[in-house]
Amino acid sequence: MAQSGTCIVAQSGGPTAVINSSLCGVVDEARHHSCINRVFGALNGIEGVISERFVDLSAMDGELLRRVRNTPGAILGGCRHMIGEGGEGEKELERVLEVFAKHRVRCFIYIGGNDSMDTALKVHRACLAQGRDVSVIGVPKTVDNDLAETDHSPGFGSAAKYVATSVLEAGIHASGMFSAENVVIVETVGRNTGWLAAASVLAKRNDGDPPHLIYLPEVPFSFDGFLEDVSLAVKRYKGAFVVVGEGIRTRTGEMVGATSLRDPFGHPHLGEAASNLARLVRQELGLTARFIKLDLCQQSAMHFASLTDWEEAYSLGKAAVRNAIEGLKGAMVTLVRKPGYGYECSAGHALLEKVANVEKPIPDIWLTREARRVHPDLVEYVLPLIQGEVAIPMKGGLPDYGSLQNTQKTERRCRECAGADSGCYSGVS
Amino acid sequence: MAQSGTCIVAQSGGPTAVINSSLCGVVDEARHHSCINRVFGALNGIEGVISERFVDLSAMDGELLRRVRNTPGAILGGCRHMIGEGGEGEKELERVLEVFAKHRVRCFIYIGGNDSMDTALKVHRACLAQGRDVSVIGVPKTVDNDLAETDHSPGFGSAAKYVATSVLEAGIHASGMFSAENVVIVETVGRNTGWLAAASVLAKRNDGDPPHLIYLPEVPFSFDGFLEDVSLAVKRYKGAFVVVGEGIRTRTGEMVGATSLRDPFGHPHLGEAASNLARLVRQELGLTARFIKLDLCQQSAMHFASLTDWEEAYSLGKAAVRNAIEGLKGAMVTLVRKPGYGYECSAGHALLEKVANVEKPIPDIWLTREARRVHPDLVEYVLPLIQGEVAIPMKGGLPDYGSLQNTQKTERRCRECAGADSGCYSGVS
Repeated sequence: MAQSGTCIVAQSGGPTAVINSSLCGVVDEARHHSCINRVFGALNGIEGVISERFVDLSAMDGELLRRVRNTPGAILGGCRHMIGEGGEGEKELERVLEVFAKHRVRCFIYIGGNDSMDTALKVHRACLAQGRDVSVIGVPKTVDNDLAETDHSPGFGSAAKYVATSVLEAGIHASGMFSAENVVIVETVGRNTGWLAAASVLAKRNDGDPPHLIYLPEVPFSFDGFLEDVSLAVKRYKGAFVVVGEGIRTRTGEMVGATSLRDPFGHPHLGEAASNLARLVRQELGLTARFIKLDLCQQSAMHFASLTDWEEAYSLGKAAVRNAIEGLKGAMVTLVRKPGYGYECSAGHALLEKVANVEKPIPDIWLTREARRVHPDLVEYVLPLIQGEVAIPMKGGLPDYGSLQNTQKTERRCRECAGADSGCYSGVS
Repeated sequence: MAQSGTCIVAQSGGPTAVINSSLCGVVDEARHHSCINRVFGALNGIEGVISERFVDLSAMDGELLRRVRNTPGAILGGCRHMIGEGGEGEKELERVLEVFAKHRVRCFIYIGGNDSMDTALKVHRACLAQGRDVSVIGVPKTVDNDLAETDHSPGFGSAAKYVATSVLEAGIHASGMFSAENVVIVETVGRNTGWLAAASVLAKRNDGDPPHLIYLPEVPFSFDGFLEDVSLAVKRYKGAFVVVGEGIRTRTGEMVGATSLRDPFGHPHLGEAASNLARLVRQELGLTARFIKLDLCQQSAMHFASLTDWEEAYSLGKAAVRNAIEGLKGAMVTLVRKPGYGYECSAGHALLEKVANVEKPIPDIWLTREARRVHPDLVEYVLPLIQGEVAIPMKGGLPDYGSLQNTQKTERRCRECAGADSGCYSGVS
């Protein structure tokens, strides 16, 4: 970057257990570079940029940073806002550029998933079109692991570790009860991709162990086939332990878990797959069926996060800043896995236009034809990502996480001082 | 006990994360007493006694015991079988006494909840009636904490710690997303009592933190009141984070989470409370609503169990054996909390007839009139029970739990040798 200036960082989409670790990587790295004179955290992603709701993160001391790094959720608040294509979108982009100019922004780091990378791309293109020298860099974040161009996404490893552990534990529990109860169905997140559902296979230590059946969105779902599979499993193992991705759908596109609502992006609101299937099993097979829906816990279970994931999230935050300083623009930092024996990942990058709105499903070669099993290569792929545990400070028997209280106060002050040149300076506790 | 003989131990009802810790307490204590010459584990509770499916636990070495103690689920298998009142029940009791005589059983230790204590009581009364010198002792076990006569039940502390941690984490996550998403509903287990739902309040660090609303089975539920509460919370906190006990019901007894099935005890099958309420919020308030149903994970999350709970479970296993040896009969060991400052619990006991089929709800004085808040005394009661963490051995990124494989093999062998005098000798790995 030619001139010293401000770095804005924001968190977008739904958070993960390690999204704050990436944020801390950004703040830590930015300190080492005199060309960045301050780091602003925008509250609620791009919305915070548009409305100038900033927290000055430059003042965060080491202890505070460590505390934030151990805290799940988006400490700055996430958002579901996308910049549209039409006039409204253009107005928003103009506003973003105005804010960038006012605060002498030299780099904008956006931590998010594939929808969020679309926003980053639009901001990047607007900067280019107006000749603004701003490095827009994305940092991948999603428990769904569906971002393209990166070997895997920060957030996935921790969610996979948590899901596999939960399936292992509930599976051991259920196996001891199969004489009295029959079917357990676990639903994992993942709208179009089944990475997390597939990762539950790590819980299987021996043939016959749960999970017995895994259904992925990548493979068309058949209600009849499902009932047949469950009946067989109940005969074979005395009970059936099933894992389904929330986005499973039939060959004709009927979503098993659809509700009547749609989200702000027009996607049908999901969340009833396990509940609907449990009901089906009760009605059609007359068996007892219960279900587990971990939902947000998959994105927030910092108490059992993967150390590998947590460290990679941090390292990509740092890499984003280094890349920005070296003049990279319109790119997302990625994890590049070294081929061959042993696990080693380094930071790379890919153009935003290659990742924005693109979804990476499980490759066909890793799907067995009937999708009730998972290819061993997928196990090899996921296993290194769940290694190690993060030591979480405890207080009164519960994790001692950072609080958003002060951030909320800042937000109120921001509204009062809107229009002042200085932005808002405050800490996060 | 007058003569040396066999101790039979069994696990009944649904398991908890620490039910194996109680089992290990029994095995460890029994070793110190020459009047117990072997410990048999009956598979699947009373069913294993009736069908003579035993595992000889006397041979378990220290390492194996430690491994089992760290493993969730019932290593011997749980059961839902109750001994009935009529002729069939009498036949079963006769069979139990026949098995006791055959294996020279001097004490029978039954780890379970209030339904299971009914079975233990029936066995005790049958022994008395036939003049059999067998000490029947119950060990409390339930995540629901609804057993009478004991200050609290092993299993509850670990479940409370896990639920509070999950609500803390998902609550932090949701709070950062309330600008985009509205309502989160968490369902906890507890058919008639709301101890676990109430314990979620431990996640609240400041006013305004999740959980915002808590609904307990002890307080009549009103659909209109619920929708009103949620609307208000969404206005006040930008979103509503709600915890409901699975057994919440209206003043007229309508179960919010009832399904069409009934369990073997004739209780309606629950499990749809959160799902039904999320649907209601979407339909009636037009808000986005998601739900979390931890279900079996509450009973099996050994990876974040309470050290206090785990140790108390073990100590009650030991106390059961000591009491049996001292000649106590027809009783359940209990936890007795020392009044006054600081937490201290010791082992006591209560007559089985006082705990069988009795449910202990949250006392009225701890319920606020509208049940959306929880009395501070309840927090004081629960807090000591969630303290400390159990160090779980890890392998390949997941907890390294003991396996049921060998037990299952034993079970097969047991069927082959049914009728032999020796019972079945095998280990649990």
